[in-house]
Amino acid sequence: MKARVHVVTLGVDDLEQSLAFYRDGLGFQSPGIVGTEFPGDETNPAGDTAMFTLDDGLILALYPRSELAKDAGVPAGYTSGTGHSLGHLVDSREEVDRILEAARAAGATVHGEAHERAWGIYSGYFSDPNGHLWEIIHFPALRE
Amino acid sequence: MKARVHVVTLGVDDLEQSLAFYRDGLGFQSPGIVGTEFPGDETNPAGDTAMFTLDDGLILALYPRSELAKDAGVPAGYTSGTGHSLGHLVDSREEVDRILEAARAAGATVHGEAHERAWGIYSGYFSDPNGHLWEIIHFPALRE
Repeated sequence: MKARVHVVTLGVDDLEQSLAFYRDGLGFQSPGIVGTEFPGDETNPAGDTAMFTLDDGLILALYPRSELAKDAGVPAGYTSGTGHSLGHLVDSREEVDRILEAARAAGATVHGEAHERAWGIYSGYFSDPNGHLWEIIHFPALRE
Repeated sequence: MKARVHVVTLGVDDLEQSLAFYRDGLGFQSPGIVGTEFPGDETNPAGDTAMFTLDDGLILALYPRSELAKDAGVPAGYTSGTGHSLGHLVDSREEVDRILEAARAAGATVHGEAHERAWGIYSGYFSDPNGHLWEIIHFPALRE
């Protein structure tokens, strides 16, 4: 297995609201909701999804939690939580603060204040409307 | 905010076990657990983490769920779940099946059998030892 992640799929409760957050709020480009020709049923997942091809080619996909669970063949509650964080590197502390404010304005929940860690990272976190954590990071030892 | 994800951090219950799964089981390269010089306390997160710089530069980080919650300033239970999936593209159906078997041999839980979706994807899912979903995908319309 190659050491690659090509797609990060976030389970969401409301696809349109989530698309609006990332596209209109954060400014990520997306063709919008696709796959609506596949309605799904009790056991087969519906196809509706929204995808963003990020600047480095990574695909960020939004997919209803219920359909992700069906697609993966796991119980419905399996995909209800969040136990991960997406990290975004920037070139200055000011940029960390600026992006957290922009995310808040876009409807994110910002957790506390950005601050410095003992290991040299200055960062702060926000949660998207589905609770998925993003960490906005300035780490001089690890530049973008 | 640029449309980039530089780091994917997975919350884990047992850092050494999780490192072993990805490094020894899946073959991802890592210098091992770092940051142990930062012990943390009740409110400040410990630094212990394991990181993999993937083939395209994306950093996959393993970090205890408890410390991720402290670092993010969210309640301890916030990071207990999984509500996302990491997608990995391969060039054939046989490669999907082969990787799922290899993941199973490495200690992953494989969910059902790989199969074709109405939208043309052939894929199957496994969960890592902490329940994080990986989808191994063959999608002729979206080659690696």
